[in-house]
Amino acid sequence: MAKAAQNAISPTRQEDYAEWYQQVVRAADMAETSPVRGCMVIKPWGYSFWENIQKNMDAMFKATGHVNAYFPLFIPKSFRLEAGPDGGLVPAGELEEPLIVRPTSETIIGALYAKWVQSYRDLPILINQWANVVRWELRTRLFLRTAEFLWQEGHTAHETAEEAMEETRKMLEVYRAFMEDYLAMPVLTGRKTPNQRFPGAVETLCVEAMMQDRKALQAGTSHFLGQNFAKASGIVYQSREGREEHAWTTSWGTSTRMIGGAIMTHADDDGMVMPPRLAPAHVVILPIFRKEEERAASLAYAEGIARALGNLDAPWGGKVEASVDKRDVNAGEKGWEWVKKGIPLRVEVGPRDIEKDAVFVARRDRGPKEKYGQGREEFIAGVPALLRDMQDGLFQKAAAFRAEHTRDIDEYGDFTAFFTPENKDKPEIHGGFAMSHWCGDEACEEKITNELSVTIRCLPLDREASGPGKCVVCGKESKGRVPFAKAY
Amino acid sequence: MAKAAQNAISPTRQEDYAEWYQQVVRAADMAETSPVRGCMVIKPWGYSFWENIQKNMDAMFKATGHVNAYFPLFIPKSFRLEAGPDGGLVPAGELEEPLIVRPTSETIIGALYAKWVQSYRDLPILINQWANVVRWELRTRLFLRTAEFLWQEGHTAHETAEEAMEETRKMLEVYRAFMEDYLAMPVLTGRKTPNQRFPGAVETLCVEAMMQDRKALQAGTSHFLGQNFAKASGIVYQSREGREEHAWTTSWGTSTRMIGGAIMTHADDDGMVMPPRLAPAHVVILPIFRKEEERAASLAYAEGIARALGNLDAPWGGKVEASVDKRDVNAGEKGWEWVKKGIPLRVEVGPRDIEKDAVFVARRDRGPKEKYGQGREEFIAGVPALLRDMQDGLFQKAAAFRAEHTRDIDEYGDFTAFFTPENKDKPEIHGGFAMSHWCGDEACEEKITNELSVTIRCLPLDREASGPGKCVVCGKESKGRVPFAKAY
Repeated sequence: MAKAAQNAISPTRQEDYAEWYQQVVRAADMAETSPVRGCMVIKPWGYSFWENIQKNMDAMFKATGHVNAYFPLFIPKSFRLEAGPDGGLVPAGELEEPLIVRPTSETIIGALYAKWVQSYRDLPILINQWANVVRWELRTRLFLRTAEFLWQEGHTAHETAEEAMEETRKMLEVYRAFMEDYLAMPVLTGRKTPNQRFPGAVETLCVEAMMQDRKALQAGTSHFLGQNFAKASGIVYQSREGREEHAWTTSWGTSTRMIGGAIMTHADDDGMVMPPRLAPAHVVILPIFRKEEERAASLAYAEGIARALGNLDAPWGGKVEASVDKRDVNAGEKGWEWVKKGIPLRVEVGPRDIEKDAVFVARRDRGPKEKYGQGREEFIAGVPALLRDMQDGLFQKAAAFRAEHTRDIDEYGDFTAFFTPENKDKPEIHGGFAMSHWCGDEACEEKITNELSVTIRCLPLDREASGPGKCVVCGKESKGRVPFAKAY
Repeated sequence: MAKAAQNAISPTRQEDYAEWYQQVVRAADMAETSPVRGCMVIKPWGYSFWENIQKNMDAMFKATGHVNAYFPLFIPKSFRLEAGPDGGLVPAGELEEPLIVRPTSETIIGALYAKWVQSYRDLPILINQWANVVRWELRTRLFLRTAEFLWQEGHTAHETAEEAMEETRKMLEVYRAFMEDYLAMPVLTGRKTPNQRFPGAVETLCVEAMMQDRKALQAGTSHFLGQNFAKASGIVYQSREGREEHAWTTSWGTSTRMIGGAIMTHADDDGMVMPPRLAPAHVVILPIFRKEEERAASLAYAEGIARALGNLDAPWGGKVEASVDKRDVNAGEKGWEWVKKGIPLRVEVGPRDIEKDAVFVARRDRGPKEKYGQGREEFIAGVPALLRDMQDGLFQKAAAFRAEHTRDIDEYGDFTAFFTPENKDKPEIHGGFAMSHWCGDEACEEKITNELSVTIRCLPLDREASGPGKCVVCGKESKGRVPFAKAY
């Protein structure tokens, strides 16, 4: 009973992390399951967050020279690729087979690029698509793993391996910048081990974040596909030297999974905490009145503040988004609703505040009962700086959490202990990210995965900065540490 | 031979309208067919037009209080509705049947609204979705009729019939304003006859435009669904009086078909003509040089103009979109590419222009060879007004075309003649819209459809303004004229 009174979300993260996550999504009214097994409904508050993600990421794609297009939902089944005898990719199945719903679009887009590309003058092709894709999943979790999800997939074709590799790295950097500067979610970047590459990729780069259960979330990938897909799809161009060459291609994607990542990075035991830069709204004003005759004055005062805020530039462009919650619901209940939705600032205004020309402010990055009074004009003028401060604070808090749960580990015994939960019923309470040496041998990687369900999240691009050492499994030479973690 | 030299598109509208349309889409590089039967690829120039449609229409939806959300691609087959014995809607098929890909989302959204709505306090629900839908079609035409297409579908639920009807009309007006003010496409508005209503709708309102082959294109519909869908889906709420009531619902949609409408409204025998307000770009600058040593000066001059233009506010918000076409392609070929893409303004700058601090301008709404010289600064300062002028001119031209091919017809003989093409091989060359009287009898409507493939496009909301008369088929009383036309 006492617990229920203390926190808006039950259970807490500590009590049952997986269930806490579901309850946060529900309490924030961001998404829910649908009558279609494994498919979610993204509700307006969650979709508005997605729209802000799209708008900002899309601007970054366009700033790096990409354009959008739209390709078919369906893919002829004959386009499915599987590993051929020589390790290349060959079509699965035969012609005139049924259609499948796209799980990703490399093959259908490849078939079109093969038509569009004749000469080096037609390269590069730099196209992105915002779309829905479908992958049947046995166990689904809202935003993190659903049968249908929304994503963007970039597909580019280039003249040279170098240019395609540069594109692969450039988009990884766009993802890193977006995750850190917009979602306020710190990420590690690096290359996947050969074991964990996208099928057909020569190199898979990724961004990896730590969630509050200390598990890793792969939040985006950027693939250098070499000439594998160009060969499978027949993307051939006449080079500057007049030779027929296969193009070099890349693909890169992020999805509504980022929303799950933002929730598991920032939400607390009172619900969602929206990073201000992408929040569907920044400020809600709650007019307080006890007597009916106070209502009009409170509403007018609240609306004056909302108007003044709406004229302010947000620190990242656009305007401050503020509104008055005029609904006929008691003020306490309203306040908690907004806490659970994670709006950055809640402002209460009642008869006494009006008298003092003041407001009562609650920041979502502080405790839900921690509020302070402030003069009205001073508060209004300070909102843009306050939002920026909150955005920076969220990033720093998440970075500190990751640092706290990341440890250099050199002995296999320590490694095993680090990943063993004290309580088997709560596997989430374990060490976090182990920075350990790895010799590069798949056998060592597989042993760890089989014994501990732990994977190498990436090979950091600056791996050698950590210095050489001995593989945590077999003791052989290692060029540098790599992050090991349990993962979503 | 002479013909091919005169026009960029072959055949011309006059020679073969249907083929002209396909060639315009291809020459503008807006879309193409895909390896998936009936599904199109929307290419970057076409998709950018769609993005501008989305952005502007979405702002109008939000300004009228709507929010976006996302619902599943799949619908349980058991959700399919068919007409029941009492004229109501009942589920088709049984539980645990396979999924279908959504052709529209009333049923899946209805199932969710039934969960979300408990009391009148939960109403209205005002949600829109941007999504892909699929309808198998035997004969497909890019943008106009494809198996998969992109659209928006609004789905709202209300306390009263009056409020839902008001919503239905409000969204029709949003559509009308968008088609006329943004797409520069004049539309008739009105109610569909009972025969042509959306299945299950009590009232279907629509916007209808005249294409250049004088046929009608239904460009958007807004449905008042009464309580039919609420009853089928179980959307029940407790009213202010404490009674259990079924909600009143609406749905409204527009799609990538609007792009086909814009093409068939504005394009000419030289290709696409983009309405400036939604054009992917406003101005292209083509640097002209004969000798290599002139290249740098031409490029620098061109880029200076592009920068200056890019700082100007477009007449409808946002900035003027201008760029320099630096590709290594000869200037004539480049110029024709942009004519075919329909960019509003092409600007040529060569050594002689630089000397005179001038530019050479071609407007897409004039003949492709009609160009004029103008001082550089004067040209730049005049671009926003010029774009507005072109936008208005496109609307007026289309309205004049419609007026020219709309006739009041009272005799069935004249009516038949109006819709009979002189040349049976070119059915597109017929009268256009006949404004004729109709008694309201389905038999008269069906006779015309069966004999002439002509339908009543809508019953204008102000129908009675045209005065009463006699039905063009049977001679019985009619309250006012209605537009009859062949249609897409």
